[in-house]
Amino acid sequence: MSVQAMISTHPDVEGNFSAPLVRFIESALACAQSCTTCADACLAEEKVADLRQCIRLNLDCADICAAAATMASRRTGSNEAVLHATVEACARACEACAEECGGHAEMHEHCRICAEACRDCAEACRAALPDIG
Amino acid sequence: MSVQAMISTHPDVEGNFSAPLVRFIESALACAQSCTTCADACLAEEKVADLRQCIRLNLDCADICAAAATMASRRTGSNEAVLHATVEACARACEACAEECGGHAEMHEHCRICAEACRDCAEACRAALPDIG
Amino acid sequence: MSVQAMISTHPDVEGNFSAPLVRFIESALACAQSCTTCADACLAEEKVADLRQCIRLNLDCADICAAAATMASRRTGSNEAVLHATVEACARACEACAEECGGHAEMHEHCRICAEACRDCAEACRAALPDIG
Amino acid sequence: MSVQAMISTHPDVEGNFSAPLVRFIESALACAQSCTTCADACLAEEKVADLRQCIRLNLDCADICAAAATMASRRTGSNEAVLHATVEACARACEACAEECGGHAEMHEHCRICAEACRDCAEACRAALPDIG
Repeated sequence: MSVQAMISTHPDVEGNFSAPLVRFIESALACAQSCTTCADACLAEEKVADLRQCIRLNLDCADICAAAATMASRRTGSNEAVLHATVEACARACEACAEECGGHAEMHEHCRICAEACRDCAEACRAALPDIG
Repeated sequence: MSVQAMISTHPDVEGNFSAPLVRFIESALACAQSCTTCADACLAEEKVADLRQCIRLNLDCADICAAAATMASRRTGSNEAVLHATVEACARACEACAEECGGHAEMHEHCRICAEACRDCAEACRAALPDIG
Repeated sequence: MSVQAMISTHPDVEGNFSAPLVRFIESALACAQSCTTCADACLAEEKVADLRQCIRLNLDCADICAAAATMASRRTGSNEAVLHATVEACARACEACAEECGGHAEMHEHCRICAEACRDCAEACRAALPDIG
Repeated sequence: MSVQAMISTHPDVEGNFSAPLVRFIESALACAQSCTTCADACLAEEKVADLRQCIRLNLDCADICAAAATMASRRTGSNEAVLHATVEACARACEACAEECGGHAEMHEHCRICAEACRDCAEACRAALPDIG
């Protein structure tokens, strides 16, 4: 993905991009995709009734990750307090989903991979927050 | 819209719905639509260069409102800490956008209407937060 | 909702709005919300395993309805071929979801209401398409 | 991104994934991010008034790419006619945006990169369509 290239050419950035913010955008898009697929894979499992909470957390996590990545991709003007609160919410969603998916990791490979994507995104959120202001 | 009817028939709700949460979902969907259109209407204005910050805040507000409304529409299992943080971020986005749009309300009717939708949604967020946990 | 008010004040519209397009935006937002909640209500049902296809169609329908409503809310410049194809895809999603949810309408009230919202949106799509170009 | 890994572990896929569909999901997510950033970078340009159509097409393209990638990430049950129509709409959006951004490629590096992302996604759409049914 060309997140860094795109952000770098923004007239208000001009190469002076935040590496943690770029990493956050990449992680959040990957996490949203993993969570969307994990929710759907859980739905197809024989014991879907045991995976209701996992599906719920996956879908919520996908929604906030996608919104946060989109908002963080904008650099015109400023909206720091809002972006900060959104990335904070994203971090909590990823942590909750990582814990839930992690609990099914031995049983379902999609939950194991998704838990990793959530942990990676939670870390990316925490690393980006100080750069957001 | 049938938000109340849909939420009321959820097996985990069974008529015992939160009126502030239903109002929040309705307000957030209306606010997202208003912000999307206001951003686009600002873009078409002759003095678009003076409306850059307004467009930015409108687009961010639309994204977080849509995500928050979708997440609040789910009642299976629980994800209260995440929903709380998301609605808090949504409130801040609406407050920021209401202030910015409000500053253009005398010049642009779309900004006046959009500022109202943002204020309404910010109030709906604040009223729903205690019910979220 | 203030869809008509917002669209009417757009500098490129100036009161000359398309009533079928306004109705489409309202229907699509209501349908997206119904489908999101119906997917989640199906997930909470005891016989969730029998509702997998319904959940899948609900989630897909919510995604395309939300995207189509957002795209139709923009009136700056023009993008008619793209909007036409998107609303056509939205109509098919609503028709597929209406049929599936309709099959569970006697068993689940949320499916009955959601099938209605999908039928309403499918009709709104078909009525708006000639106005899109 | 772990798109292939996630899709491969889905119980209804079991390793038998469609490589063109995986490539489409990756391209569409990258394209959505490029278009979101390009719209915002255009907004920050001094001659923003000349870039209105580019911003409009970018925003529409981001919306349909994100929706299509999310829908294509689901493999439970089937929804082929709907996914086919959605990816077709996505292809048209990418083609329109590639042409518009391509026209500003010499002036704005973000438009040049974004046009590439759009062309890549349009190709990925066309390559995936026969696999969708």
